[in-house]
Amino acid sequence: MRDQRPPPLAASGPVDAPVPASRRNPDEVRVHGFNACIAVFNSRPHDVRKVYLTQARLDALKPVLAWCVQRKLGYRIVESADLDKLTQTQHHEGVCFEVRRRPLLSLSTLLAQLPRAPAPVLLVWLDGVGNPHNIGAVLRSAANFGVHGVILARESAAALSGAALRVAEGGAEAVPAAQTLPGEDVFGALRNADIAVAATVPRAGESLYATTLPKRVVFVLGAEGGGLPQALVDRAGVHLTIPGTGAVESLNVAASAAVMFGEYFRQQVAKPAQRR
Amino acid sequence: MRDQRPPPLAASGPVDAPVPASRRNPDEVRVHGFNACIAVFNSRPHDVRKVYLTQARLDALKPVLAWCVQRKLGYRIVESADLDKLTQTQHHEGVCFEVRRRPLLSLSTLLAQLPRAPAPVLLVWLDGVGNPHNIGAVLRSAANFGVHGVILARESAAALSGAALRVAEGGAEAVPAAQTLPGEDVFGALRNADIAVAATVPRAGESLYATTLPKRVVFVLGAEGGGLPQALVDRAGVHLTIPGTGAVESLNVAASAAVMFGEYFRQQVAKPAQRR
Repeated sequence: MRDQRPPPLAASGPVDAPVPASRRNPDEVRVHGFNACIAVFNSRPHDVRKVYLTQARLDALKPVLAWCVQRKLGYRIVESADLDKLTQTQHHEGVCFEVRRRPLLSLSTLLAQLPRAPAPVLLVWLDGVGNPHNIGAVLRSAANFGVHGVILARESAAALSGAALRVAEGGAEAVPAAQTLPGEDVFGALRNADIAVAATVPRAGESLYATTLPKRVVFVLGAEGGGLPQALVDRAGVHLTIPGTGAVESLNVAASAAVMFGEYFRQQVAKPAQRR
Repeated sequence: MRDQRPPPLAASGPVDAPVPASRRNPDEVRVHGFNACIAVFNSRPHDVRKVYLTQARLDALKPVLAWCVQRKLGYRIVESADLDKLTQTQHHEGVCFEVRRRPLLSLSTLLAQLPRAPAPVLLVWLDGVGNPHNIGAVLRSAANFGVHGVILARESAAALSGAALRVAEGGAEAVPAAQTLPGEDVFGALRNADIAVAATVPRAGESLYATTLPKRVVFVLGAEGGGLPQALVDRAGVHLTIPGTGAVESLNVAASAAVMFGEYFRQQVAKPAQRR
């Protein structure tokens, strides 16, 4: 790390009001939140295009600024209120990076990267989940429990916004993500990869806690309210229900994901480790 | 339910800009979100003071409007944009009730209501969690898994806003809530009630999945980042850690709560049921 304090970027006018999403470069995303930004920097620093930070973050981001100077990348020290505008939230934690989006994989690329059978594999497939906060929360829990990849149907892929990445707290960098294509034979591809499809249903599935989970499995989670498309549920080989009292209709989709990842981890990772 | 369409409330001027929180009646809260409002109406209709709804919600809320007419309570059919202002969010789902707050219990009242030892008891104690969305999410999962009560330190009690109740999706009505007082001997009260204190710590606790959880237990969850006060951790009899890969620093506090409630449910409720 360089000790030399890099010169601030020459101001190019006032910090701008947010550029409408439609006019922004679709290959870039404004990541914000300290852990989310640091995770991008640690895993793919060459994708950082521009850095905004508050004075208070100077020390914590020194290595990033040294990198900016070395690579002749712009950085600007701004007021917190400027970051509010840039990120359209107050939850930016004093930092925003404009970064190249991590390209979404094709399903076949994701599947080709996985450990071969009979090694355990855990995936999650989001179909109909369009709330960036929920997607970010699923990615954070997925990273914690070592989920091998996330499969995103169209609306979920579109929701991988800066807010989703912030909520993921760096988890979006740790979990490979693939996007399904319209008409793609996802079930066939998963079957060829020896991965069982377990649809999460609000009622009448096997209780998560009375089931030995398949060693190679994808948990499919749908929109709250609407749930998964019936055609998808019908084709799934396993149907899982998180049991409960019925005092609320269901768990939040991110809470469901955390509970299911945790139970898979308990069965596949924690229990074998105890037996040693 | 009456069939007669109740007359709309006489308009009393334009729908108001939000009243600053400081000038509002502290005993009232603007609940919004369909499930949250319905849960209040179902559990304590006498606490509903005023009802705002969009035209699209008329049918779904007919029983509520009949109640309003019967009780001479005001209701108003408003535009969605008016609800945006009233609730300060776009996530109101077309309905907002002004309701009397459910008074928080004292800790001793909550403990006196619980099943006596040796019956199983699960509580959650939030200390330092001030984000209304996280508190709401914890309440929703708590309601799902039959948690007997939530203990709220000061900042968590203060965060039981309309947004928290919306995120709880009715769970806030199902789970009794108590507030601790400054200087109160919470540990002593819990010990007298035969309830073990299990502090959640990010590292170096017993793995959640390698532990037989106490049958009568309170899970203590702290702020993300800061974590629990060390003095509290030191006094706790059990220290639990949710295991993981380390790819993210920790789970979100609401995800942690869901995972822990789920594991308690598995050990205490689901497994004995299987044995029958």
